[in-house]
Amino acid sequence: MHKKLWIPGPTEVKEEVLNQQAKYLVGHRSNDFTLLYDSILTQLKSFFKTEQHITVLTASGTIFMDISGRNLIRPGKKAICCVNGSFSDRMHKAIVGCGFEADRIDVEWGHAIKPEMIREMLEKNDYDILTMCHNETSTGVKANLKEISDVLKDYPETLLVVDAVSSMAGDLLLPEEMGTDLLFASSQKCFALPPGLAVGIVSQRALDRAKEVPNKGLYTDLIGIFSYYEKKKQTPSTPNISLLYAMDYKLKELLTEGAENVAKRHKEMADYTHEWALSHGFGLFAEEGYRSVTVTTVANKLEKDVNELNKALGEKGLIIANGYGKLKNQTFRIGHMGDHTLDDLKELLKAIEEIWNL
Amino acid sequence: MHKKLWIPGPTEVKEEVLNQQAKYLVGHRSNDFTLLYDSILTQLKSFFKTEQHITVLTASGTIFMDISGRNLIRPGKKAICCVNGSFSDRMHKAIVGCGFEADRIDVEWGHAIKPEMIREMLEKNDYDILTMCHNETSTGVKANLKEISDVLKDYPETLLVVDAVSSMAGDLLLPEEMGTDLLFASSQKCFALPPGLAVGIVSQRALDRAKEVPNKGLYTDLIGIFSYYEKKKQTPSTPNISLLYAMDYKLKELLTEGAENVAKRHKEMADYTHEWALSHGFGLFAEEGYRSVTVTTVANKLEKDVNELNKALGEKGLIIANGYGKLKNQTFRIGHMGDHTLDDLKELLKAIEEIWNL
Repeated sequence: MHKKLWIPGPTEVKEEVLNQQAKYLVGHRSNDFTLLYDSILTQLKSFFKTEQHITVLTASGTIFMDISGRNLIRPGKKAICCVNGSFSDRMHKAIVGCGFEADRIDVEWGHAIKPEMIREMLEKNDYDILTMCHNETSTGVKANLKEISDVLKDYPETLLVVDAVSSMAGDLLLPEEMGTDLLFASSQKCFALPPGLAVGIVSQRALDRAKEVPNKGLYTDLIGIFSYYEKKKQTPSTPNISLLYAMDYKLKELLTEGAENVAKRHKEMADYTHEWALSHGFGLFAEEGYRSVTVTTVANKLEKDVNELNKALGEKGLIIANGYGKLKNQTFRIGHMGDHTLDDLKELLKAIEEIWNL
Repeated sequence: MHKKLWIPGPTEVKEEVLNQQAKYLVGHRSNDFTLLYDSILTQLKSFFKTEQHITVLTASGTIFMDISGRNLIRPGKKAICCVNGSFSDRMHKAIVGCGFEADRIDVEWGHAIKPEMIREMLEKNDYDILTMCHNETSTGVKANLKEISDVLKDYPETLLVVDAVSSMAGDLLLPEEMGTDLLFASSQKCFALPPGLAVGIVSQRALDRAKEVPNKGLYTDLIGIFSYYEKKKQTPSTPNISLLYAMDYKLKELLTEGAENVAKRHKEMADYTHEWALSHGFGLFAEEGYRSVTVTTVANKLEKDVNELNKALGEKGLIIANGYGKLKNQTFRIGHMGDHTLDDLKELLKAIEEIWNL
């Protein structure tokens, strides 16, 4: 039996969206492909109300962690990485793995990084980029991008790189308003698509920076990607055409609902889940005021057996996620993102209540 | 109307294979996924009769060009790139783009690089890798890997990196016998799958080399990829699960046919196409003795209009490829790879004869 995915990615993908992938292929150098890709980029720009540059890469979102380092840090310069969970830590690993120096601002998992912490570091050092996870899938903490980018206004050399893997197209993200220079995500989270594509939204000043940076590689070279697009309106390497069919279809749905309504639906699911968790004696792992609208990390104060729960949920065709890494069993996670609705969520939570006799 | 793809990638994908992508997703950290990925790797090892390490990355095959430089060239060392077409040139661009020095052996497009040319360069310089395109999709030239790797036996520090994007799973490629250290391909060529996955077959000495090399990045770090696999039997980043379903299905078919029979079928299609081209007054662009079995680049000696041909073929639900880049109209290309059979090919060629009154 299929288990409906309430994990924080990959998320549940509807049959009609999955079926888009079964369409016959066209050549990636054909006019048919140009039209498909143009339709996708136009819809993305419209959904995110942005004039920034957008690309869709055939890869997991992680590739943009490498791209951040390799395109935006000049020789001899360094990064500052805000770390408050597993995925923001992964970003630091990627930057260092690319051979760059990267300082860290660490706060305890479950907490958010505050603007004053950032200002303190930027006062003392020059950084080419500041990296931030908008929505820490491991902890359910959401960053306040606006208050961060307000600080960065005083440090114009420091570009804001944001991993929005598990929030883009769920939470409301407006690149210009949030002041992001590279905002990226994967297809398998709030887009409610299968994994395999990564969306990158890039500011003009990030592209200008990339022009100054050597050794960007080929697959990870933003200048190569966007200059090929300028010339040919296609992608330099063969893209995942099947998944782009599905993305084109899904974006039409997202635009019909509208970015604000999508965000409202996610916020309602988050509020309901928070209220549910607290009213049943659980806690919320994420700091108040910084709670994700796409994933709730429930503090397992009742010390319930999460693996047993998932076994029982599995028999009902449902699955949630255990805590991430070191948070296993101490927390469990509900990914209320993508196509899920409040009504679906109520059924899930009712099923959990029944299994655990809450 | 769908046009059956006789271009050298993406190739025609059968409905039943496309449909595999429409299956419901499982979590990429689930046991279901571990079983799927294990099934794929086991089948790949069996098909290529290899004990080398295999990984399937969510990306276009091009990513392995970056990976080659970033994992196999030590600081201060350099590469030697054999260039006889657009894709071997692209490999040189990638290596240089990653910041490494790379010498070139250039021969005229349509010709093969000979072992004595390689020996001459290796005598004069130390190289960490030699790069080679096994099957130049732009020219229809196939490299003789065995005679190249025989030379490399005298230069054990020089690893053999082979782009087999348009020949792997069509032509017979046995990593140990061919002496390759990194052999890579994409899903959308002879595997007859949609684009979006890249297969890499890596020797132990290549992995040992990668351990010595810094700054491999995260998404492009072979050590990270294989050590995660060792520990968890999964992939470090979220993979394209839909396409892996299709690959698992397709590999069963390939193994049922058997690697030798697959290669024989491709050779028969190549021989038939060569004979057809010559008997109708066209030429063959690739040097004799080095002709690809998966794509034929026909020298357009009759100066026929290739775009007009494709328009007329389109009405019959067929499409071939014009020449690549500077070879446009001077040549045209027939991609007889993947699921195509000799009977299908005869129909295609008959259609071309009718349109052009041959």
